[in-house]
Amino acid sequence: MDILCRCVSSALFLSFGMRRDVNVHLLLLGEPEPGKIIRFEGLHLRYLNPDERSSGSLISKALLKNATELDTRSTPGVWIRKGDLKSLLAAFDGRTLLYLREDGKDIRELAGEIRDPVFILGDHTGVTEEEEKQLFEAGAQIISVGPISLHSNHCITLIHNELDRVEAERGEIPGGANSEAED
Amino acid sequence: MDILCRCVSSALFLSFGMRRDVNVHLLLLGEPEPGKIIRFEGLHLRYLNPDERSSGSLISKALLKNATELDTRSTPGVWIRKGDLKSLLAAFDGRTLLYLREDGKDIRELAGEIRDPVFILGDHTGVTEEEEKQLFEAGAQIISVGPISLHSNHCITLIHNELDRVEAERGEIPGGANSEAED
Repeated sequence: MDILCRCVSSALFLSFGMRRDVNVHLLLLGEPEPGKIIRFEGLHLRYLNPDERSSGSLISKALLKNATELDTRSTPGVWIRKGDLKSLLAAFDGRTLLYLREDGKDIRELAGEIRDPVFILGDHTGVTEEEEKQLFEAGAQIISVGPISLHSNHCITLIHNELDRVEAERGEIPGGANSEAED
Repeated sequence: MDILCRCVSSALFLSFGMRRDVNVHLLLLGEPEPGKIIRFEGLHLRYLNPDERSSGSLISKALLKNATELDTRSTPGVWIRKGDLKSLLAAFDGRTLLYLREDGKDIRELAGEIRDPVFILGDHTGVTEEEEKQLFEAGAQIISVGPISLHSNHCITLIHNELDRVEAERGEIPGGANSEAED
């Protein structure tokens, strides 16, 4: 759970404010009730601070909701539903799926071409073969962020930096609500 | 304090292990007893996990020690002493001081030339004019990690990635105990 909390914070926080163009989807497959998806929407999110306790508290509140196949709102910008990897990927149909793995193509080689991206990161236990198969069937490309294995929250910071740099080069304001959405 | 905890974690953690070539110096200038320096030595550090509570606990333990001008060991790899920015900079005499500020030179333009570096980052309240004067008198150069203002812990992750990439290009093993030390 700690690593998820840090990922939420890395994905959504700027120094002074929040990345309103980012959504975070946490796919929870652990016991006691595997198959829940919690979604943080940067645009509508409230009550989130950068510390782990804060995101942990919002996750805990969402888990108290009676999750169904349909979205249930927990707190502003936080939603929960029942779902698995397949249903999550179905929601991203047509978008650019980028799966982080150490042997992937360096993000610096393709950052400038990335459009409408969805980044997929495993936790410290990794992604199973079966899950990888589903990712590749959905069209995911494998990318990496550097020469060394890092925690997922650090990978998210590195992804943002690459995209921020590309947006700045294009003359856009990185992290703004009008810049390209990322999931 | 939260931001310091996250900085310690970002500076020292790899996915599977610790950056043994990294030291972290926390300069604590807040009340009730301003002027303490806590040093985390990657090479000797024990009892640290990636979560905020873990680094917070080691910091708290160190602060319980009776700090003097000389180093006092708190837990393995964690030391505390009395000191200010001036005494901290004196300890880095002869090394490459790199001060993170948004208007600095892009680290990507100079990462390949950085030798024996010490990176200096302010907290969310920034660095005072007087402190900046001391940094420049000590020879610090201003660098930046991207086009957008980020939390210090995210900046540390980005610095590591730049140096990891340079070390990998040189054929070294990034993050290893034999790679170049960083503070």
